[in-house]
Amino acid sequence: MPQNAQTNRRIVLAQRPKGAPDANTLRMDTTAIPSPGPGQMLLRSAYLSLDPYMRGRMNDAKSYAEPVAIGGVMTGQVVAEVMLSNLDAFTPGDYVLAGNGWQDYALSDGVDVLNLGPNPANPSWALGIMGMPGYTAYAGLLKIAEPQPGETVVVAAATGPVGATVGQIAKIKGCRVVGIAGGPEKCAHVVDVLGFDACIDHKAPDFAAQLKAACPSGIDVYFENVGGKVLYAVLPLLNAFARIPVCGVVSWYNLPGLLDGPDMGPAIMGTILRMKVKMQGFIIFDSFPRSLYAEFARDMTGWLQAGKMHYTEQMIDGLEAAPQAFYDLLEGRSFGKMVVKV
Amino acid sequence: MPQNAQTNRRIVLAQRPKGAPDANTLRMDTTAIPSPGPGQMLLRSAYLSLDPYMRGRMNDAKSYAEPVAIGGVMTGQVVAEVMLSNLDAFTPGDYVLAGNGWQDYALSDGVDVLNLGPNPANPSWALGIMGMPGYTAYAGLLKIAEPQPGETVVVAAATGPVGATVGQIAKIKGCRVVGIAGGPEKCAHVVDVLGFDACIDHKAPDFAAQLKAACPSGIDVYFENVGGKVLYAVLPLLNAFARIPVCGVVSWYNLPGLLDGPDMGPAIMGTILRMKVKMQGFIIFDSFPRSLYAEFARDMTGWLQAGKMHYTEQMIDGLEAAPQAFYDLLEGRSFGKMVVKV
Repeated sequence: MPQNAQTNRRIVLAQRPKGAPDANTLRMDTTAIPSPGPGQMLLRSAYLSLDPYMRGRMNDAKSYAEPVAIGGVMTGQVVAEVMLSNLDAFTPGDYVLAGNGWQDYALSDGVDVLNLGPNPANPSWALGIMGMPGYTAYAGLLKIAEPQPGETVVVAAATGPVGATVGQIAKIKGCRVVGIAGGPEKCAHVVDVLGFDACIDHKAPDFAAQLKAACPSGIDVYFENVGGKVLYAVLPLLNAFARIPVCGVVSWYNLPGLLDGPDMGPAIMGTILRMKVKMQGFIIFDSFPRSLYAEFARDMTGWLQAGKMHYTEQMIDGLEAAPQAFYDLLEGRSFGKMVVKV
Repeated sequence: MPQNAQTNRRIVLAQRPKGAPDANTLRMDTTAIPSPGPGQMLLRSAYLSLDPYMRGRMNDAKSYAEPVAIGGVMTGQVVAEVMLSNLDAFTPGDYVLAGNGWQDYALSDGVDVLNLGPNPANPSWALGIMGMPGYTAYAGLLKIAEPQPGETVVVAAATGPVGATVGQIAKIKGCRVVGIAGGPEKCAHVVDVLGFDACIDHKAPDFAAQLKAACPSGIDVYFENVGGKVLYAVLPLLNAFARIPVCGVVSWYNLPGLLDGPDMGPAIMGTILRMKVKMQGFIIFDSFPRSLYAEFARDMTGWLQAGKMHYTEQMIDGLEAAPQAFYDLLEGRSFGKMVVKV
């Protein structure tokens, strides 16, 4: 269904998935384009961010945010253009970063909306390297893990926007960096383009042995974003006083229920105890003081301008393609930061 | 075998246990009493400490300390009397805290030996409330968990020397404290004598439901010393930004191999992520600056003198009784700090 000036296309949660989401999980509907009242503005989405955390919003479970209601618009950040405005701080033509969700249009009162101005360079980057994923990588790595020069840092999903950034910052800080990714093409990119010291293919039958060989001095920092077999291969390689910022466990997001044994609880807890590991979960927008964002923006801008930071986007064409792209993301079939050109 | 002035009785590791240790794990032998050379002293053990960590030393596995060798004397701290001394800082009749292990006599060069003086009050307390267990409780709770007034603190093995101390310090700091112990007698002691707000019997069939009812505002601090079903009952009750100092997982120390499923890894990691939990393993003698010990000794002495801290010892009579007492400790059949009167 093409975008139409008279309708607002929305992707809503049709039913909660049990395990991996499928064609029945999301559906598109249309509504009228709303009109802004006093103190409101009308935003038209230009770019929609797709991120693994969105899978959690599909569940009806206690989490760090409210679940999406059945029939509700899927949660998501967008870069949008101001179309009409009854707010002094926003002018038609301005681009903004806002939490409008998976839809063409939304009203906003301007609260928690960042004005990017009328002609931002690389507007979609506000969803990636300069936004939530980049900031997540920066804060989790530098404020929780505090990597020291010469230490070994391991990060999975190394072509994803968080993993790629974690590894590149760790290189800037003088660490040995080992990435993990799915398949030889991604691994080559991680080493050749992103500059990691090594990258291990988690699909290789001898993955754990390869990881061990790539970490001859053990692992000091493991940036956790996948869980599963990667975590279990990392555990026996952790050094004393290792740090594990826990940012995500995407390999487990589609679990339909309990996972078969053995129970790895004793291995996780025993390793934390014996190796004096610090493991800390964090959610970027409530785990750090607001002042940290300015520090991040300054450092990241400097690294990008100096050519020390490479950033890859995978642009998806059209809102209607968002559901399948999101399912691909959850299964590791993405490359770089996934952004939907709405 | 009675202690004899002419022999040194030693309890040595006969074979590494697979699962729970048994009558074949440890054996007693005797050697001649050694003579101190230049720069040495001869120590006679008065009290031997029994602690859960000793189970780990029986394994031939990477841990925070070397395993005990087959045929080697079991590791352990003792309060001992100086019998002969060629060291200026130690005089016959002095009592000392030393790592002599499970035996009557040992030579020492005085390194890492604390001189308690000739007539210490409560000499065995150096193995408990004023020593490693008390210091572990203090540092883990106050430096890793940093409990705030009004927060809910949960601690298992609540009649043990660490758990009892954690809970009493948390009460002093203004927290709601919920203990967990095995059986109604222990639970009554925890509430009536130690002053916890509640204590739940982990042997109760509805243990998890009782724990939930005792924590109506959720759990802010869980001091981990047991692992197993207690940990799994705590996970769904954790509040945002909960802290978990990991001091031990005693319920898992006797595991003969892998534990049946389901795999609780996703629950552990998912909770850490969603609730922004900090979990940190620590070993008292290398996780904190040495200066912290003086702070602990000052505070603990003050609390004991003010009657704010209750301390229970379970005195075991004779070195020959140490193995069975230790097996009882691992199975939760202890009450208070276990000390062997050698």
